[in-house]
Amino acid sequence: MKVIYLDNNATTRTAPEVVKEMLPYFSEHYGNASSMHTFGGENKKVIEDARKKMAALIGAQYPDEIIITAGGTEADNTAIMSAINSFPDKKHIITSAVEHPAVLEVFKNLQAKGYKVDYIGVDKNGRFNMDEFKAAVNENTALVSIMWANSETGTIFPIEEIAKITKEAGSVFHTDAVQAVGKIPVNVADTDINMLSFSAHKFHGPKGIGALYVKRRTRFMPFIIGGHQEKGHRAGTENVPAIAGFGKACEMALENLKNTSKTAVLRDRLEKGLLAKISHSKVNGDVENRLPNTSNISFGYIEGESILLHLNDYGICASSGSACTSGSLEPSHVLRAMCVDFNFAHGSVRFSLSDENTEQEIDFVIEKLPPIIETLRQISPFGRRS
Amino acid sequence: MKVIYLDNNATTRTAPEVVKEMLPYFSEHYGNASSMHTFGGENKKVIEDARKKMAALIGAQYPDEIIITAGGTEADNTAIMSAINSFPDKKHIITSAVEHPAVLEVFKNLQAKGYKVDYIGVDKNGRFNMDEFKAAVNENTALVSIMWANSETGTIFPIEEIAKITKEAGSVFHTDAVQAVGKIPVNVADTDINMLSFSAHKFHGPKGIGALYVKRRTRFMPFIIGGHQEKGHRAGTENVPAIAGFGKACEMALENLKNTSKTAVLRDRLEKGLLAKISHSKVNGDVENRLPNTSNISFGYIEGESILLHLNDYGICASSGSACTSGSLEPSHVLRAMCVDFNFAHGSVRFSLSDENTEQEIDFVIEKLPPIIETLRQISPFGRRS
Repeated sequence: MKVIYLDNNATTRTAPEVVKEMLPYFSEHYGNASSMHTFGGENKKVIEDARKKMAALIGAQYPDEIIITAGGTEADNTAIMSAINSFPDKKHIITSAVEHPAVLEVFKNLQAKGYKVDYIGVDKNGRFNMDEFKAAVNENTALVSIMWANSETGTIFPIEEIAKITKEAGSVFHTDAVQAVGKIPVNVADTDINMLSFSAHKFHGPKGIGALYVKRRTRFMPFIIGGHQEKGHRAGTENVPAIAGFGKACEMALENLKNTSKTAVLRDRLEKGLLAKISHSKVNGDVENRLPNTSNISFGYIEGESILLHLNDYGICASSGSACTSGSLEPSHVLRAMCVDFNFAHGSVRFSLSDENTEQEIDFVIEKLPPIIETLRQISPFGRRS
Repeated sequence: MKVIYLDNNATTRTAPEVVKEMLPYFSEHYGNASSMHTFGGENKKVIEDARKKMAALIGAQYPDEIIITAGGTEADNTAIMSAINSFPDKKHIITSAVEHPAVLEVFKNLQAKGYKVDYIGVDKNGRFNMDEFKAAVNENTALVSIMWANSETGTIFPIEEIAKITKEAGSVFHTDAVQAVGKIPVNVADTDINMLSFSAHKFHGPKGIGALYVKRRTRFMPFIIGGHQEKGHRAGTENVPAIAGFGKACEMALENLKNTSKTAVLRDRLEKGLLAKISHSKVNGDVENRLPNTSNISFGYIEGESILLHLNDYGICASSGSACTSGSLEPSHVLRAMCVDFNFAHGSVRFSLSDENTEQEIDFVIEKLPPIIETLRQISPFGRRS
């Protein structure tokens, strides 16, 4: 069965150009980049070339501001623990209520260890509560960690403004930009962002590789400890093939961002088509300020998981939230923070597109989903028959 | 120039069979293994099949005792921090003086935070000082972490006995088996080993993937925190291609271990050939009890780094120690712990072979190295002219 892949916020197809870039470093130029001999040492150049491309994609001024990690989660964990350990006397930390678990779970852990944590809320459209934030941040705040774009709704937060306020309060600012980088222009150079996490597999790079941007003069303490790799900032044998692939994916993403995205056009076509045909349906998130590829739609009075199973029968891949939190029957913490009505929060589906999707695929979904919703509502335990 | 690769303890060539196993999961079956849809979910089975092969290679009774990580360093860090955080009242930890930095640096960090650390010494042949260890371990010991085989000399420690003594003292035992697994039979099932780290790229698997074995009923606390992957034991999107490749490498290594290794024969040929031709040369480590692929030879009165540079001119890749610690002009901490004479410690070279090496390659080294040593000794700052 043909797969219609609308789950690109979970992971993306590794671009064949990226795989091609990786291949020579598995069985041919396989040396350890930290080795003294030329065979290994010449891979150092491969890494530094890739690092420049990573820096270019996010507008970092210096490539050495990029610390390569094994993915977005490690980058997030590293950033948070670095700030905590760099400012041991500050016992207050701030995040938002709608973060990815890679940030949220670390904050909950720190809370259990005695940190005072403020989880800044959002309004019904998922917009960041700036007033709440301004009232919370103070000179005892060790870290503010706020995501750039929400993985479930695509809502984009005013990161540059939040970073500026954080700096004025004398605190460190980190952003989990895993969903933003590669999809929208990100430029850290003239901002007050101290640290930024991103991950290759969210924009057609390989899995298992990511990076943490750390602005010069930001205090940094390593999280994974051992050898001298990454100038002592992250231990572990350099994953040369994945790093080369990550660099290529960054280069391709930067190039793609110069062109008008066809993804947003397809996303809007999907949304318009579904909302026109399905009653009691509504879009979640800030439609004025969203990732171009993401649509989170609630179909009232039914279970999102049931919708996904029926879509799956047609080869249509979507999600009820983040893949990282699946398996739970709780409605998404993001939609709960937005106070989405219970009857709608349960029936939400995230469609996340890429520029590899086609109009035909979108129209197939618009054709198949309405009868699925109708059938499910007839057997819905929520009581309403539409 | 043809490369003669004798640096397999730094990293190995990814076997073409392993790359073949990885390839379908980049651009074809690229779904997120934690996704609800079949396209992603079917990768769960790929992971579980690979996990079984990882368990089989080390003789783990249950596949769910294997937690997949992004490499050996992460596995080591995870094991140590898990034990520390699981037993917050015990403030004593034990390791050896000859560990890999992925263990040693974490212990130094903990020491700086107030932990009492015992670094168990070795004798002049690199053998573990069991009496010193027995006197050190006690009911206040949170963790004993001792490597299975030394990365620089190949010396194998009596891990099962150390684990048994640790258990009797009521403490947790971890072994960094990164250099042992895949090279010698390792069987954890009937031992008192609580945790064991291993890494794919040390035995022809891909870089950026490893595992931590955690015996059932061992207290465990996750190190990388976020999503529910690995049953909540290690967060981050599953690196399906690398995991599939890791599984294949484990399967191949297990099969290879059934055959008599030709690597030891080649290693012995190299050693015998060099020692016969070069005066003031000696083997470091426990020659009775060594990895079959490793030879660490000291050539007195010269610098190891100079030897490596001259070998490099012939395309011969060797190492002066671990790639993770290169860049430093200090003699290796392993040789220092063995009290190797200064004039010999500086001139040590580690040759680490694999079954991909040939007799021709070894004979080439035996031909080229003696004149290099002779030349270097003529210009040596150490004063001796041999």
